[in-house]
Amino acid sequence: MRDILSYHGHSQLISFAGGLPGLASLPLEKIKKAAGSVFADYGSRSLQYGTSEGYPPLREWIASELTGDGVATEADEIIITTGSQQALDIISRTFLNPGDGVCVEVPTYNGALQAFDLNEALLHDMKSDEEGPLKESMKSVLQDISVKLCYLTPTIQNPSGKSYSLQRRNELANVLDESNCWFIEDDPYSRLIFDGSTRPMISSLMKTQSIVVGSFSKTVSPSLRVGYLRAPRNVIERIIPVKQAMDLHTTLLSQMILYRFLLENSFEEHLYNLREEYAAKQSIMIQALDESQLPVVLKCRPEGGMFLWLEFEEGLDTVRLSHIALKEGVAFVPGSAFYYDARGSRFGRLNYTAVNGDEIFEGVRRLSRAVKEFYKTGDSQ
Amino acid sequence: MRDILSYHGHSQLISFAGGLPGLASLPLEKIKKAAGSVFADYGSRSLQYGTSEGYPPLREWIASELTGDGVATEADEIIITTGSQQALDIISRTFLNPGDGVCVEVPTYNGALQAFDLNEALLHDMKSDEEGPLKESMKSVLQDISVKLCYLTPTIQNPSGKSYSLQRRNELANVLDESNCWFIEDDPYSRLIFDGSTRPMISSLMKTQSIVVGSFSKTVSPSLRVGYLRAPRNVIERIIPVKQAMDLHTTLLSQMILYRFLLENSFEEHLYNLREEYAAKQSIMIQALDESQLPVVLKCRPEGGMFLWLEFEEGLDTVRLSHIALKEGVAFVPGSAFYYDARGSRFGRLNYTAVNGDEIFEGVRRLSRAVKEFYKTGDSQ
Repeated sequence: MRDILSYHGHSQLISFAGGLPGLASLPLEKIKKAAGSVFADYGSRSLQYGTSEGYPPLREWIASELTGDGVATEADEIIITTGSQQALDIISRTFLNPGDGVCVEVPTYNGALQAFDLNEALLHDMKSDEEGPLKESMKSVLQDISVKLCYLTPTIQNPSGKSYSLQRRNELANVLDESNCWFIEDDPYSRLIFDGSTRPMISSLMKTQSIVVGSFSKTVSPSLRVGYLRAPRNVIERIIPVKQAMDLHTTLLSQMILYRFLLENSFEEHLYNLREEYAAKQSIMIQALDESQLPVVLKCRPEGGMFLWLEFEEGLDTVRLSHIALKEGVAFVPGSAFYYDARGSRFGRLNYTAVNGDEIFEGVRRLSRAVKEFYKTGDSQ
Repeated sequence: MRDILSYHGHSQLISFAGGLPGLASLPLEKIKKAAGSVFADYGSRSLQYGTSEGYPPLREWIASELTGDGVATEADEIIITTGSQQALDIISRTFLNPGDGVCVEVPTYNGALQAFDLNEALLHDMKSDEEGPLKESMKSVLQDISVKLCYLTPTIQNPSGKSYSLQRRNELANVLDESNCWFIEDDPYSRLIFDGSTRPMISSLMKTQSIVVGSFSKTVSPSLRVGYLRAPRNVIERIIPVKQAMDLHTTLLSQMILYRFLLENSFEEHLYNLREEYAAKQSIMIQALDESQLPVVLKCRPEGGMFLWLEFEEGLDTVRLSHIALKEGVAFVPGSAFYYDARGSRFGRLNYTAVNGDEIFEGVRRLSRAVKEFYKTGDSQ
């Protein structure tokens, strides 16, 4: 996947590969203004060391948001991390010994797989349907006492685009409450449901042992690298020394700028504009796929987020296709990146937020040419 | 130590505890200007994702500096890290299995001890004199094949303030070249030698297996959290996926602002001013200690940097003293923080860069009162 994300062989490559916000949707003027306010009001203190837990007003802001989402949270239950990626690593590092199990749904976020792999976890997955993982299957995986963590993205799952049903959330919350395992609820996309509606977090339905992971990378700016985790105080106390030994603290200046951005602007209005833009781009990509000759099925039309998850026809290996596609000038991520084993070879993930309408149509045309090329060259491979 | 750094019980605490640059020495106006230039020239791209290796022009700048220091380096041998703390963790994580050995000099930087501890290393230390570790002692430690890393800060060692002699650097370079162990040369303070002179890095005298770790936290701004590591390409290739799984990348905006700061200003002039200020503060603290009744010996007058390392008289336990000192309104770090075992109880580290002249005198007076209180309350403890 790294190779695909950094491929520069085609001079005008259209990339559906990354998970990048659209450049035009990044709030440049507002961040500039927020940075000016931070320098004016805090002076040199904005350039000094911060605390390992994170910038206090930002922790309070996040705690209040989560409380509004039904997960009652105090500021001292929040740690700011260098993106949600670091939150996933730090939780794994705190809870896992090599060989411990992690329960996941597949396909799942490849960054999470990388964090679990770095911590030498063994992965176990559950049977799922369109409403989410099946409770009996989860129960059976969690019976294994070596399974220490269960990782899910219940709202606009990456890459599948699926959001779990309310009934399923309740069922899974019960199973998790009855297990000894810690639940990690990754929630990067819940503010990007296109119609502005919300879904109850599984953590809000649970009584114990839940950790929420979130990020401002998809909603404000990835460059700032501000994510967070929410956990009970006794877990926070275990995590702080780990965070301190890992990088002392996350960039204070970007935490201060982000907080100021949230204070000076209507976050809701910013999100509204982002959702309008991403909804329009999703529609364009679905239209382009419909009009194309691609032998694919879109199993789920995501209610928001940044990606479409395509199932190609039998016999089409998307790893090989992705290499041909690069030569044709279009990048996407083959499905295997989202599995911890050999599954996923018929799937592919396409991002629509980092490209414009013309690029979406042209990229899909190139992908169609790549599929034709795939079959033409099939025998010689 | 964390308790000491976060103590707020005394309303006007004077802290000699942290390793903070002086607030007034942080280049606020220049950073503000650099941030403005970044937003103006790069627009939304400054808010987008970056690469795991780091911002290319900054990597080039660092490579060129290191080359100037005698360690020939290309940009692709540099990875930008979230402070040098992350560099230490990422190297440990890449090279160490639990129980592997790390060779250190004691006392040594407590953040390094935390990173090694997080990675479950066993620590071994060498006999030293005022010129640095003894070559025979290093040779004997490195003979143990379980010792995978050797960590040193040859220039203005933290906390001792010692800089290794040229002859000793040559001797240690030879011993390291003959071992199988990887050498980590931590170099946060070499630009803070007060008279502006330089010392050859041990890495510049070695042929193989050296990794240099550096940071802009002590020379520009800690808030930005920009550090780096320099290693041979084959090591860089192993480290990049680890960095990616840990936090994807270090804040791009702060890398861009830092690079622009370096481009728009004379770094030498900035460092010159910093050195003048820190040299003056060091003199004031030495004068204050001379005039005080404190039963301490300053074994080394550091040629630069941010700290003095004090040896108290026999029987004075600096952990207990540090608690009494907090009540008297002055914080310092007891020596035990810089050892991995029970040694260090007669030592203490005092920072002089984050305080002004009056605070230095007043803080030393409070420390003297704390010592009297220590002996008064000694029997009841």
